[in-house]
Amino acid sequence: MKIFGDSISGNCLKVLWTAKLLGLPHEWIETGVLTGETRTPAFLAMNPAGQVPLVLLDDGRPLAQSNAIILHLSRGSDLIPRDAYLEARMLEWMFWEQYSHEPYVAVARFQVRYLGKSPDSLGPDLFRRAEAALDRLDSALDGVDWLVGDRFTLADMALAPYTRFAPEAGLALEAWPRIREWIDRFETFLGLPRLGDDR
Amino acid sequence: MKIFGDSISGNCLKVLWTAKLLGLPHEWIETGVLTGETRTPAFLAMNPAGQVPLVLLDDGRPLAQSNAIILHLSRGSDLIPRDAYLEARMLEWMFWEQYSHEPYVAVARFQVRYLGKSPDSLGPDLFRRAEAALDRLDSALDGVDWLVGDRFTLADMALAPYTRFAPEAGLALEAWPRIREWIDRFETFLGLPRLGDDR
Repeated sequence: MKIFGDSISGNCLKVLWTAKLLGLPHEWIETGVLTGETRTPAFLAMNPAGQVPLVLLDDGRPLAQSNAIILHLSRGSDLIPRDAYLEARMLEWMFWEQYSHEPYVAVARFQVRYLGKSPDSLGPDLFRRAEAALDRLDSALDGVDWLVGDRFTLADMALAPYTRFAPEAGLALEAWPRIREWIDRFETFLGLPRLGDDR
Repeated sequence: MKIFGDSISGNCLKVLWTAKLLGLPHEWIETGVLTGETRTPAFLAMNPAGQVPLVLLDDGRPLAQSNAIILHLSRGSDLIPRDAYLEARMLEWMFWEQYSHEPYVAVARFQVRYLGKSPDSLGPDLFRRAEAALDRLDSALDGVDWLVGDRFTLADMALAPYTRFAPEAGLALEAWPRIREWIDRFETFLGLPRLGDDR
């Protein structure tokens, strides 16, 4: 499998980390969002949406959308609950992530960290919604280690990567202590270095 | 099963129409977005996200997020391809819908039709992105009847409801003839009345 991804993208890291966790052979092909590499004719022929991550499966067929990819790679594995209701709750978090978390938490971080904008210039609405998403996540982590069924699932894999980068948008996680502990667990579970001492 | 939904919401209609198509017994509980019924303490206790659709399954457990709900209701049915790759492509469309289609096509329609705003007041960006989503959908429908595997799947169920309402935002579908034919097929398949002669 080839994974076309940008190392600065939480959506792309989801796919890389899922492949590593499952021990799936893969080749990472760094594909820069900021340098227009997702808009070349060759790339658009593989993914008309012009987005990373994109995977080419071993038979050459393409698959896009980070959460669709990690669901496909994880079929039959322990990353998806066997119980139908718990699987549905996991999917609920994954769709919520793309609609109510990523467009605020990830976009704020991209604008601040990679486009060099000041948080003030982005207006209060973006940050208000990012904070609302983090509030909800923090509440959901009350008394549990993981989001669904008290074990690591793709709900955690979908939500932790961009949440982990939230401090880069000025969203210091000290306001959300349960999220901070969950990110610690996430990094330990995946064997990742601890990102930043200032969160 | 109880379905809490607002009849003006494409996301809610997805759930209703999936339940009907599968012949699942259900009770529809009209829950107004515009009248604050999704923000009452009783509703927030069921869904902390304060959003419809929400279902209460027969055992009383809640489930939110339209696409997570229709995936759960459709487990093992013909609405989900049995082939793993086709299922993944279906999921790809469903995540794309929530990230790149609904926030533009549905939001534009809600602002124009239900909040009474003029399209000009919403700025060009919203409509540019809505049109880009419709362009991509139209291209994908070239030479096929349905989005995935040439039979009706949840990809069509996720994308058709708000696309069908696009003319209410001033997005006349005559610019996208393959979408118009697909909406005709969708209405026929579900036994829906034809919505509007002006699309």
